[in-house]
Amino acid sequence: MSEIKEIIDALLQFRDERDWEQFHDSKNLATAISIEAAELNELFLWKTIKESEDVNPEKLKEELADIMAYALLLANKHGFGVKEIILDKIRKNGEKYPVEKAKSNAKKYNEL
Amino acid sequence: MSEIKEIIDALLQFRDERDWEQFHDSKNLATAISIEAAELNELFLWKTIKESEDVNPEKLKEELADIMAYALLLANKHGFGVKEIILDKIRKNGEKYPVEKAKSNAKKYNEL
Amino acid sequence: MSEIKEIIDALLQFRDERDWEQFHDSKNLATAISIEAAELNELFLWKTIKESEDVNPEKLKEELADIMAYALLLANKHGFGVKEIILDKIRKNGEKYPVEKAKSNAKKYNEL
Amino acid sequence: MSEIKEIIDALLQFRDERDWEQFHDSKNLATAISIEAAELNELFLWKTIKESEDVNPEKLKEELADIMAYALLLANKHGFGVKEIILDKIRKNGEKYPVEKAKSNAKKYNEL
Repeated sequence: MSEIKEIIDALLQFRDERDWEQFHDSKNLATAISIEAAELNELFLWKTIKESEDVNPEKLKEELADIMAYALLLANKHGFGVKEIILDKIRKNGEKYPVEKAKSNAKKYNEL
Repeated sequence: MSEIKEIIDALLQFRDERDWEQFHDSKNLATAISIEAAELNELFLWKTIKESEDVNPEKLKEELADIMAYALLLANKHGFGVKEIILDKIRKNGEKYPVEKAKSNAKKYNEL
Repeated sequence: MSEIKEIIDALLQFRDERDWEQFHDSKNLATAISIEAAELNELFLWKTIKESEDVNPEKLKEELADIMAYALLLANKHGFGVKEIILDKIRKNGEKYPVEKAKSNAKKYNEL
Repeated sequence: MSEIKEIIDALLQFRDERDWEQFHDSKNLATAISIEAAELNELFLWKTIKESEDVNPEKLKEELADIMAYALLLANKHGFGVKEIILDKIRKNGEKYPVEKAKSNAKKYNEL
């Protein structure tokens, strides 16, 4: 079984043991991702960029896990393959950000 | 090679061809995840929960891919194994949300 | 003294008594707004739109206050007049969302 | 008429001309605040804290105006007085962050 399938199965089992599928509509899952992303950002709040690298690794792991868990649940709900959608997006981003224009440049594609 | 490693390698290649590692400090990557999460939420804005299920699948794929891409880059930057941190978090959540208390209940663990 | 000036003065006094201006750069203030906005959204998480109206008013007041406080601090840092920038934005939105096109319609201006 | 009342009246007029009150439930307004907060953060993305101060002031004004507009609409929907809830929150924060403990310290109250 693929690694990603294994992770998703563990998430679904956790969800189903608690009968939580009823709460996991797409809109609420999207909100949950945002909230977990904000908790991740809170680890770095009021810190300089340099200080931010000294973040507590256990907390960082937990927030990243929460974000990815909800993202995987939402992808799974819609039947998306994780590898496929990320590789597709990389291809699209390659068109928006051609190497010769985007190299060493953090501007958004519509400002390049 | 594992599926997740394959995805991360594609993300790193994309990043390095553009010499973007210099921008990918932990604080900015966390902000990027939040921004992509907000773009995901925008797909559902002003919609009812039911209407939200009719979201454009191509846009949903792209926003989910962006969130997962930045989350994978941040996890990789800190050397975290994706499967490991998610399975660990499921275990921790199992203690915060025991089945008998959490079943069919969407309350936060500190309100159960 | 104007009401908004009075609020901002109270915020600045609170900040300066704690010598916190040093942490209040624009980037961190913007992150703080996002985090408070996520805490606001957490009040509604896993709820239907209808259930969301029964939110605890004290918590709602606190989260709204936090968001507005950081927004006012960021506006003040850049010398913006709150009334002026909101009325200006209403004018701009009037051009993006003309009544005849936008009436009873929640679509984004670029999809109208 | 108070300044804040004047701003809220302009927001309500804009909303009602477009018959948009039907979309402005509390949950969606909260999501809208989060999305605007993310657009604010995007102005600073991939920038250092120092570089972030050179943000385009027109864009900063617009994002701050959007955040405050939705926050005012949500506060108004629940009949909250803006000045009252912010001053109340400052008082509460004064208890969580006493000057002697919080001075020159960016830690969260539960870590002070």
